[in-house]
Amino acid sequence: MAKSETAFQDQYSDFTSHCYGCGRLNEKGLQIKSYWDGEESVCHFRPREYHSAIPGYVYGGLIASLIDCHSTGTAAAAAYRQAGRPMGTEPELRFVTASLQVDYLKPTPLDVELEIRGQVEEIKGRKVIVTSTLAAEGVVCAKGRVVAVVAPDELMQPGSV
Amino acid sequence: MAKSETAFQDQYSDFTSHCYGCGRLNEKGLQIKSYWDGEESVCHFRPREYHSAIPGYVYGGLIASLIDCHSTGTAAAAAYRQAGRPMGTEPELRFVTASLQVDYLKPTPLDVELEIRGQVEEIKGRKVIVTSTLAAEGVVCAKGRVVAVVAPDELMQPGSV
Repeated sequence: MAKSETAFQDQYSDFTSHCYGCGRLNEKGLQIKSYWDGEESVCHFRPREYHSAIPGYVYGGLIASLIDCHSTGTAAAAAYRQAGRPMGTEPELRFVTASLQVDYLKPTPLDVELEIRGQVEEIKGRKVIVTSTLAAEGVVCAKGRVVAVVAPDELMQPGSV
Repeated sequence: MAKSETAFQDQYSDFTSHCYGCGRLNEKGLQIKSYWDGEESVCHFRPREYHSAIPGYVYGGLIASLIDCHSTGTAAAAAYRQAGRPMGTEPELRFVTASLQVDYLKPTPLDVELEIRGQVEEIKGRKVIVTSTLAAEGVVCAKGRVVAVVAPDELMQPGSV
């Protein structure tokens, strides 16, 4: 399976595209983009200079954010794939995070592009588990594990907020 | 033990005050402030309107960031307390995150002040484990657990970056 052409996040509905981490309509946000690359999902992101922890390295919250949003996007893409229909078709399949685990293996340099790769560990019912690595110049700096669940109906109704 | 008057983060050295989550010198960052409140540590933070996930709710990465930085700050404050010297004295005791676990229990509303409360679960050698809750209007929306370790020497040398 080749790399997909359209980012997962560019197939979210307008209503669900305001997330600071991954929403294409959030002008102040990170606007990450995730794709299939064979059986894995991949996202590239270059931190901004103010995303520092100790000078020269990326702060942990950004790493958590990238892993979180890339994983919920991967969960949605995997759920569409399992349902046998194109991403973006109705009813929308969107996931929220039930739990997030990040292991910080080594300091992540600030001045290079980061690569996050996700693998679907399990997909069952309303739950998808995604594991991931975050690497800088080929060196894995963090590992993640996200338990994603289908977004509750009450969150998905524009009139409710 | 009463509430402390000076925030943990306002006692970090200039060099370690550039973190996007908690550095007082990071003009674009969140600049969270944490204090002792008896045996617990506490931090209040009001999300900005662009910190959304699905409209009306806070995105998971911000919650992870708040828990992460509040916990490493709590770890440092606890280490100073155990060492019997005031925070901010040399040599500086600063912690980085080895692992971060966040359980998202319910959607976190965007338009209210959040309260993060930390508890020191364990302090041993170079490691401090901090558990925490994140609440909105008294309702716990997320729980966190951070394993923090003393920052490696090579990260703490200004000339190295």
